[in-house]
Amino acid sequence: MRHLLSTKDLSRDEAIRILDVAEDMADVQTREVKRLPTLRGRTVVNLFFEDSTRTRISFEAAAKRLSADVINFSAKGSSVSKGEGLKDTAQTLGAMGAEAVVIRHHASGAPQVLAQSDWIDAPIVNAGDGTHEHPTQALLDAFTMRRRLHGDASRGRGLDGVRVVIVGDILHSRVARSNLWLLRTLGAEVTFVAPATLIPLGAGGWPTAISHDLDATLATRPDVVMMLRIQAERMNAAYFPNAREYAREWGLHDERLLSLPEDTIVMHPGPMNRGLEISARAADSERSTVLEQVANGVSIRMAVLYLLLSGEREVV
Amino acid sequence: MRHLLSTKDLSRDEAIRILDVAEDMADVQTREVKRLPTLRGRTVVNLFFEDSTRTRISFEAAAKRLSADVINFSAKGSSVSKGEGLKDTAQTLGAMGAEAVVIRHHASGAPQVLAQSDWIDAPIVNAGDGTHEHPTQALLDAFTMRRRLHGDASRGRGLDGVRVVIVGDILHSRVARSNLWLLRTLGAEVTFVAPATLIPLGAGGWPTAISHDLDATLATRPDVVMMLRIQAERMNAAYFPNAREYAREWGLHDERLLSLPEDTIVMHPGPMNRGLEISARAADSERSTVLEQVANGVSIRMAVLYLLLSGEREVV
Amino acid sequence: MRHLLSTKDLSRDEAIRILDVAEDMADVQTREVKRLPTLRGRTVVNLFFEDSTRTRISFEAAAKRLSADVINFSAKGSSVSKGEGLKDTAQTLGAMGAEAVVIRHHASGAPQVLAQSDWIDAPIVNAGDGTHEHPTQALLDAFTMRRRLHGDASRGRGLDGVRVVIVGDILHSRVARSNLWLLRTLGAEVTFVAPATLIPLGAGGWPTAISHDLDATLATRPDVVMMLRIQAERMNAAYFPNAREYAREWGLHDERLLSLPEDTIVMHPGPMNRGLEISARAADSERSTVLEQVANGVSIRMAVLYLLLSGEREVV
Repeated sequence: MRHLLSTKDLSRDEAIRILDVAEDMADVQTREVKRLPTLRGRTVVNLFFEDSTRTRISFEAAAKRLSADVINFSAKGSSVSKGEGLKDTAQTLGAMGAEAVVIRHHASGAPQVLAQSDWIDAPIVNAGDGTHEHPTQALLDAFTMRRRLHGDASRGRGLDGVRVVIVGDILHSRVARSNLWLLRTLGAEVTFVAPATLIPLGAGGWPTAISHDLDATLATRPDVVMMLRIQAERMNAAYFPNAREYAREWGLHDERLLSLPEDTIVMHPGPMNRGLEISARAADSERSTVLEQVANGVSIRMAVLYLLLSGEREVV
Repeated sequence: MRHLLSTKDLSRDEAIRILDVAEDMADVQTREVKRLPTLRGRTVVNLFFEDSTRTRISFEAAAKRLSADVINFSAKGSSVSKGEGLKDTAQTLGAMGAEAVVIRHHASGAPQVLAQSDWIDAPIVNAGDGTHEHPTQALLDAFTMRRRLHGDASRGRGLDGVRVVIVGDILHSRVARSNLWLLRTLGAEVTFVAPATLIPLGAGGWPTAISHDLDATLATRPDVVMMLRIQAERMNAAYFPNAREYAREWGLHDERLLSLPEDTIVMHPGPMNRGLEISARAADSERSTVLEQVANGVSIRMAVLYLLLSGEREVV
Repeated sequence: MRHLLSTKDLSRDEAIRILDVAEDMADVQTREVKRLPTLRGRTVVNLFFEDSTRTRISFEAAAKRLSADVINFSAKGSSVSKGEGLKDTAQTLGAMGAEAVVIRHHASGAPQVLAQSDWIDAPIVNAGDGTHEHPTQALLDAFTMRRRLHGDASRGRGLDGVRVVIVGDILHSRVARSNLWLLRTLGAEVTFVAPATLIPLGAGGWPTAISHDLDATLATRPDVVMMLRIQAERMNAAYFPNAREYAREWGLHDERLLSLPEDTIVMHPGPMNRGLEISARAADSERSTVLEQVANGVSIRMAVLYLLLSGEREVV
């Protein structure tokens, strides 16, 4: 593994290796001093073309717990634009000695462009690109499922036979896409549930079932229900009529929560719109893994930075 | 002491303990290398819902001089809003392993809400909430008075019998409130001086004298005169007619400066409006403690973070 | 050397000393761990009154590779303004224990004002002030020339007899000014090439040749051609008619690139307007030192911070 651009690229062994290293990193998080000296003196740049405070500080915390130096480069509002802009920015960061670049970009494919270029000789980590992928989110989701379902027996295992339902705005969701590829690689079965207007045209060819009936899908007793975030700016974009109707038809409201089998877990990538795609009760229930996902995000990002930067590349 | 939310909560012993630890931290500031290894690998988050570069970098410098990792989270302009927003933000920071949260919030009481919640299990430090409190400012002010008045004999002492006059926009000032509670706890006597429009309605029940005549109050030969900052945006808000009149009636202008007893000290929390609430001569005079307050702010914040995070909690 | 404000102030010995220390720092950049413990626990403040992500992160990387703590203070948009604002900001930073201040300011002379004041007792590094100077840029440019022209035999040497052509918006360029003073000190000969509207009125008295004919100047076979960045906001300001005409008359386009002698190098301070003042081919050619300049910028800034902060001041 030279970069982390997409979960589509990951082999099963690579994916399980990342999850296993993240188990070690999670152990570090339980210590009084949550820090390893591994990457002391190495420089990680957070190159964010879109605001995302949560993702940025998760990567920042992960890098600092490995003792790396972190430089935050917010390209939003600066003179940086696409095309030549990305090239010159990348070359500049490379020349300054950036040893890993975590990139969030509004354009799908920007991290790949960077990785395939000769602009910078450093591992590139995709922290979300357009509607394309968000691989560390999928990895932390898989890590969270594995821990919940397999507990202490997680190491070395995939998610074979696990049934995952992903609900909401599939059309715009890089989280849904990254999860689909990774979950399939790990042996899980995936069902996307959404109104027809929020399913991509090409999704018929994807290795997922597609449903337009949330209650019918929940009645199949899935192991995992993952609710996606609704972007408020899309509420008026004709994808669906209004918030109340969305919540009733596609939200995990209290009645649906109570109808779930006892050990079905509820996931959400955050930040949540409580009362819209997920009820407050669902968000705060014991089934909910929302905060475990956040905590596991730091462990996964530590694992990814460690594997990309520590010279252990050949192992993965 | 589990959190630092308010100076109203502090016992006299707790307050003096903080001031005494800050004396140790001030000693560190005189060294060639101004850094202690105490909090190495611990993560402090600056969660700022309002801009305040001065306060933010003072806490940042304090945390770094204790070798902590600092993550700056500017919630302003992000999608974070009040209510559920604070809950989810706090839970996210907790899940990421934040070990202390320094919070500045436009809403009075927000830090208390956070501390009383089960959203995050970390010490909360109030860095200013609405018009409510700004406890580290009051602590650094008391520390500054104690050093000026008692010198090397400061340790272990309060401010018994010290007479403090606080002048200006009491109505909106969290600094005035935090100072009042702490100064009373430490044994000082406080007089608020302001136009009637800038005194809160409930202030009649507070343990302070109230005056509407600055010259008469200064004639009582106080030990300390603390000038509050006037917010420009309130100049047109009908609280008082205009800047020139404010400066003449309520400002520490040169004539008033010269009328003060020789050892009366002049304080200001900064940033100053020179020529408005304080003249340039007063600001730069030897009586002025403005820069000592800034320097002492780092020592106080080191002491607070140290006491909250070092496991010495039971001592306070 | 107490501050670094201007290249005009530097003696030849001082300048060569900085370049030689930067050679040592460049060696550090080739190591697996690019970090020295030299400035551990020292605090460097980046005080930026203008946005400049590139310059800010170059100084930040330099300081961190010397193990210093870095505090970023973006004064843009804050309540800080000029005059009294700079005084109070500087005093505040000094009181907080800032041990070096890297300042970028829109007003020519602001760093000098700071250094000559008694507001703060810390080395001041000018990171660009108005149209006045940008000394670390000139130093990294000289360092880049020396390495290209003298290779391993660079240490201890100046740039005697080197012929440098600087092309473009001389009128507004602090880079051109800082380069001129430093290059002359190091023994080089400088020619400014620009339309008459982009040459300062006083430039007739400067120790440089002035040309209004780029092709004629290039025909003299210079050792170095440095293209300056055109600020888009000046395109409509009557200094020259339009971008296409500028590129044809004053840009380093492909034909001009091909006409250069084999070992002439092409420099640009970045960020480049490809297709305007420099063609993509010129920017990416082997003659181009653009990325070496970026990399050398970190080494130069490490050298400057080291010399100002390490106590080796008397040596320079």
